[in-house]
Amino acid sequence: MTRVLIFGTGSIGSVYAYILDRAGCSVICICRSNYDVVATNGFTINSAIFGQNLTVRPHVVKSVEDAATYAQEQGQDFDYIIVSSKAFPNATPSTASVIAPAVGKSTAILLIQNGIAIEEEYATAFPANSIISAVTYVPATQTAPGLVTMGALDGLEIGTYPAEPLDSAMPAVTALKRLAELVAAGGATVTCYPDVQVRRWRKMIVNATWNPTCALAHQSDVQFMDASPQSIEFIWDAMLEVVAVAQALGYVDVTVKDAEQQLDRAKGRIGTKGIEFSMLADVKGERPMEVEAIVGNAVRLAKEKSVSTPYLSALYVLSKGLDTGIMHRAANI
Amino acid sequence: MTRVLIFGTGSIGSVYAYILDRAGCSVICICRSNYDVVATNGFTINSAIFGQNLTVRPHVVKSVEDAATYAQEQGQDFDYIIVSSKAFPNATPSTASVIAPAVGKSTAILLIQNGIAIEEEYATAFPANSIISAVTYVPATQTAPGLVTMGALDGLEIGTYPAEPLDSAMPAVTALKRLAELVAAGGATVTCYPDVQVRRWRKMIVNATWNPTCALAHQSDVQFMDASPQSIEFIWDAMLEVVAVAQALGYVDVTVKDAEQQLDRAKGRIGTKGIEFSMLADVKGERPMEVEAIVGNAVRLAKEKSVSTPYLSALYVLSKGLDTGIMHRAANI
Repeated sequence: MTRVLIFGTGSIGSVYAYILDRAGCSVICICRSNYDVVATNGFTINSAIFGQNLTVRPHVVKSVEDAATYAQEQGQDFDYIIVSSKAFPNATPSTASVIAPAVGKSTAILLIQNGIAIEEEYATAFPANSIISAVTYVPATQTAPGLVTMGALDGLEIGTYPAEPLDSAMPAVTALKRLAELVAAGGATVTCYPDVQVRRWRKMIVNATWNPTCALAHQSDVQFMDASPQSIEFIWDAMLEVVAVAQALGYVDVTVKDAEQQLDRAKGRIGTKGIEFSMLADVKGERPMEVEAIVGNAVRLAKEKSVSTPYLSALYVLSKGLDTGIMHRAANI
Repeated sequence: MTRVLIFGTGSIGSVYAYILDRAGCSVICICRSNYDVVATNGFTINSAIFGQNLTVRPHVVKSVEDAATYAQEQGQDFDYIIVSSKAFPNATPSTASVIAPAVGKSTAILLIQNGIAIEEEYATAFPANSIISAVTYVPATQTAPGLVTMGALDGLEIGTYPAEPLDSAMPAVTALKRLAELVAAGGATVTCYPDVQVRRWRKMIVNATWNPTCALAHQSDVQFMDASPQSIEFIWDAMLEVVAVAQALGYVDVTVKDAEQQLDRAKGRIGTKGIEFSMLADVKGERPMEVEAIVGNAVRLAKEKSVSTPYLSALYVLSKGLDTGIMHRAANI
């Protein structure tokens, strides 16, 4: 039986707990704020795809240390650790160091996280372990502790870090393929890529632009488009900056056409309430934002490649300021 | 006796009510939210320059119509109308149309307002009246209705609109000089300029950059500088954009050196709490922001002159979004 530890049991972690449980895995979840509810009732998932009122009752622990103890008692390392917490690169302590006690010799680490350039700290901390990087578009929200709503979109895009051809005999590729089989067996959609960074950059077209914009303007995407005749032009130019950075890094399959598709999707939402992006939800909840993973790393990579990204740079410094204020208020500075 | 009507009796209007009253003018104030307090007790001003616990008891009316009636009863037009309300160009109704009932044949209109390109709607509405445009750096806040705190900086920079040489015999220049005499007689600092737009643009170096930045980041200038190593570079580049627009418009006396001085001033505040700019105060109070006057008009003028202003453009669309949200919430949209 494949043993999966989930670190970060927000909405995405819960959904994959459900999927992998359904695939017959032994799923262990580290829960903090939702511990009591999940330990008692498990997660309840209302999914537009999988069905309503679904329940999954994973084994629940309170900390990485408890998870490590559990693995020891069972006499077997975790086969996978899914890191589905928010991505805070260069945080102190690093998430890599936090999960370390539960990382066994053969544990593969799956990072289902937003942003770009988020893998290296895990690769450095665990040079002998397989690292799998994942992009998901699953729209899910934990509306109350242990209660998750999932929208009508499924799909996990995965690849090894660093990139490896899918016919490689490397252990990371084996772990990748096995994971894909499990997710598929759990009834969900999954696709393996030799280089998932292309997929990350494609998601960045949306994420690095709309996410900080909506957080700063305190609006949904549709409200922002409606606020000014220049709004769409701004988002479009920012999207082109993301494409330019990706291409400068060699990801030539990230194209202007991808940006066009993303802009068209947003325009297609005009007339609706629009999307409330995660960073805006964080601002409203006074929670830390994924500024560095989603915007800061893109701006730094742009600078390394001498790509001009004035809009991304503006979005970065402004959202960094907003985020710093949130963290200072949380720390009562 | 010179008769002065003040429209917009926030902090700046109150301070000039005090100064012009001291100069022997008959001062009439249109008060709304602070009407009861000011009608009973006048304004109380605590000034680091003029002294503490100063009182001025102008004649107080509730509306422009009441002011017009008062002028009619007295049988004399107002010599000056000071518009010291926030600047909302293209608002409906326009401020020019709102003050119209109180604008007599010989009334000069003094605009003590932030931003750029704010005069034309008054010049169009009152082609026969003298228009005086003013920039002030007076740091003042109305901390409670009728109670104003003023910091240790005084100074009013005035010029006719359109610009006229100071030795011109035009009525606007006469009105300008007379106003300068009155302000000086009231004990305050005032300087006449043949073209005050140069002074407006110089203030814009601070205003078009720090004001929306701090509103979006929800921080003081010092907090923002502290949030990221890129913060100062961002503000600096945005300041250079303002200088470039001013120069493209022919205001060659607005220079990089002016920007340097302004940046140095901000850096000099590091270690203090820093300045809370007006737009941030507006965001916190859910009040409309002067986005168009301070940023939008600059971006439009830049476009007319084909000056590239990516940072100002970003600040504009983002703060426009923020402001639109505030207005929609106020209107319960």
